Amino acid sequence: LIFFILALAVGFVSIVFVLTWVLYYREGLGWDGGAAEFNWHPLLMVIGFIFLQGIAIVVYRLPWTWRCSKQMMKFIHAGLNVLAFILAVISVVAVFDFHNAKNIPNMYSLHSWVGLAAVILYPTQIVMGIAVYLIPATPVYVRAALMPVHIYSGLFIFTSVIATALMGFTEKLIFGLKSPAYKESPPEAILVNVLGLLIAAFGGLVLWIATR
Amino acid sequence: LIFFILALAVGFVSIVFVLTWVLYYREGLGWDGGAAEFNWHPLLMVIGFIFLQGIAIVVYRLPWTWRCSKQMMKFIHAGLNVLAFILAVISVVAVFDFHNAKNIPNMYSLHSWVGLAAVILYPTQIVMGIAVYLIPATPVYVRAALMPVHIYSGLFIFTSVIATALMGFTEKLIFGLKSPAYKESPPEAILVNVLGLLIAAFGGLVLWIATR
Ligand code: HEM
Ligand code: HEM
Ligand code: HEM
Ligand code: HEM
Ligand SMILES: O=C1O[C@H]([C@@H](O)CO)C(O)=C1O
Repeated sequence: LIFFILALAVGFVSIVFVLTWVLYYREGLGWDGGAAEFNWHPLLMVIGFIFLQGIAIVVYRLPWTWRCSKQMMKFIHAGLNVLAFILAVISVVAVFDFHNAKNIPNMYSLHSWVGLAAVILYPTQIVMGIAVYLIPATPVYVRAALMPVHIYSGLFIFTSVIATALMGFTEKLIFGLKSPAYKESPPEAILVNVLGLLIAAFGGLVLWIATR
Repeated sequence: LIFFILALAVGFVSIVFVLTWVLYYREGLGWDGGAAEFNWHPLLMVIGFIFLQGIAIVVYRLPWTWRCSKQMMKFIHAGLNVLAFILAVISVVAVFDFHNAKNIPNMYSLHSWVGLAAVILYPTQIVMGIAVYLIPATPVYVRAALMPVHIYSGLFIFTSVIATALMGFTEKLIFGLKSPAYKESPPEAILVNVLGLLIAAFGGLVLWIATR
């Protein structure tokens, strides 16, 4: 429980940090083909793909949910994951639209390759989860046999998303900071580096809870 | 076993890729305060901190090692980790020396923060491992109680190192490729992006083996 409260706290602080970044240091939010449209990308990834996915993963472990039926818990777990996926898709559309408006090539970076792989594997995991654990027809021995695979692939996708975010911060700090440059450690660079450490800590807490 | 052979294969191909990168696309290897000195950094990190650490983690799982005594296995596990640490330290010295020679600031990036954290936590894990599992005085109930912590912290450091490497590739591709730039996807960019995917796959295989 203490780890869950810590994870929630670190998650909230991360969201505050990413909001501070895009609203105060960057150009704010918009949908105009410019930098303000790009900014939806990190914001929605941190809120949706990282925070909500992390909460979805540990939600079965919360003591106050033990009163809910197993069926209800499955709906909450699946629902949070679907919501996280929707935000991730909007987030990716924002970068593609921004790139097209600015004539920047798409899908050239390691960040975009690992990121898109995660965005494609995630709905696969959702569909498999529904097919195996929500549809009543699936026999119990199939459910049991696939549980280690479901948990491993879920945690692998989650970890890949964290790694993708750290690459994303790195790229944006190099591209976005010119004078002073990233190398000169202006306040914005420190803020986002700390945000990266917070995201890594959030990931570590979720993995700790899910592997107890 | 099949997963171990796969991990070995992916690991070897990664080493071939990083060698191709530094020797063919980059400036080769040297210890002259220039780019050739920097190149030791990715090479030793991939060979030592990623490949050898990964092998050290799964070494207890190999069927043909079950004939060895437990004591012998511990020496192999500890020895590989010590070797990986030595290579990581040389690798970090190479970048610091290169930065100082070129008057580039140290420790400004998220990559360097997460990376140095891993380089500091790693010997802590080694010392704890020796104190708890090699020194005969430690009682068995302490050894058993700390095992989940040892496994979690070991896998957390390993995963952080993989994430650090992906940030490192991203940085170096942005800094190193000017015309054609990273965005224009020259062959070097594709090579290193694929190397990043290989490293992620190696990490995934090691985590799969270690959590079975
Ligand atoms: C955490 C999950 C994330 C995923 C799955 C993800 C995915 C993607 C994808 C698929 C692209 C390619 C878009 C295109 O080529 O048009 C992209 C681009 C980009 N993302 Fe992310 N992203 C994530 C987080 C972040 C974060 C937190 C940042 C920080 C600012 C970021 C910064 C960037 C930048 C600068 C680009 C444009 C350069 C490039 O294509 O690499 N990303 N992202
Ligand atoms: C991409 C989306 C998903 C991810 C990343 C994911 C990930 C995970 C993870 C990591 C666990 C282990 C949690 C723990 O032990 O604390 C888990 C458990 C589980 N998931 Fe998912 N999951 C996803 C979608 C779904 C869906 C759509 C269903 C359908 C209902 C589902 C059903 C389950 C069930 C039944 C468990 C076992 C709960 C238990 O008895 O402990 N998952 N999931
Ligand atoms: C995998 C484990 C790795 C660790 C623990 C690590 C650690 C570090 C550290 C501590 C620094 C700071 C040195 C200084 O400030 O003088 C650094 C710098 C650097 N590393 Fe790595 N590194 C790793 C892998 C890589 C890889 C695979 C690359 C790919 C080329 C790379 C590229 C760089 C670059 C370009 C710098 C200089 C810019 C900066 O300080 O961020 N690193 N690394
Ligand atoms: C930084 C270095 C180290 C890392 C990253 C690390 C990591 C790990 C991991 C991940 C496991 C689980 C392996 C598995 O279940 O397949 C493990 C097991 C173990 N480690 Fe370490 N370890 C390190 C250093 C040490 C040292 C120095 C010792 C001292 C001998 C040690 C003793 C053990 C023992 C006894 C096991 C249990 C093996 C078993 O019975 O399954 N470790 N280590
Ligand atoms: O439907 C379910 O499948 C798993 C289990 O049967 C597999 O281990 C679980 O906890 C359910 O509620």
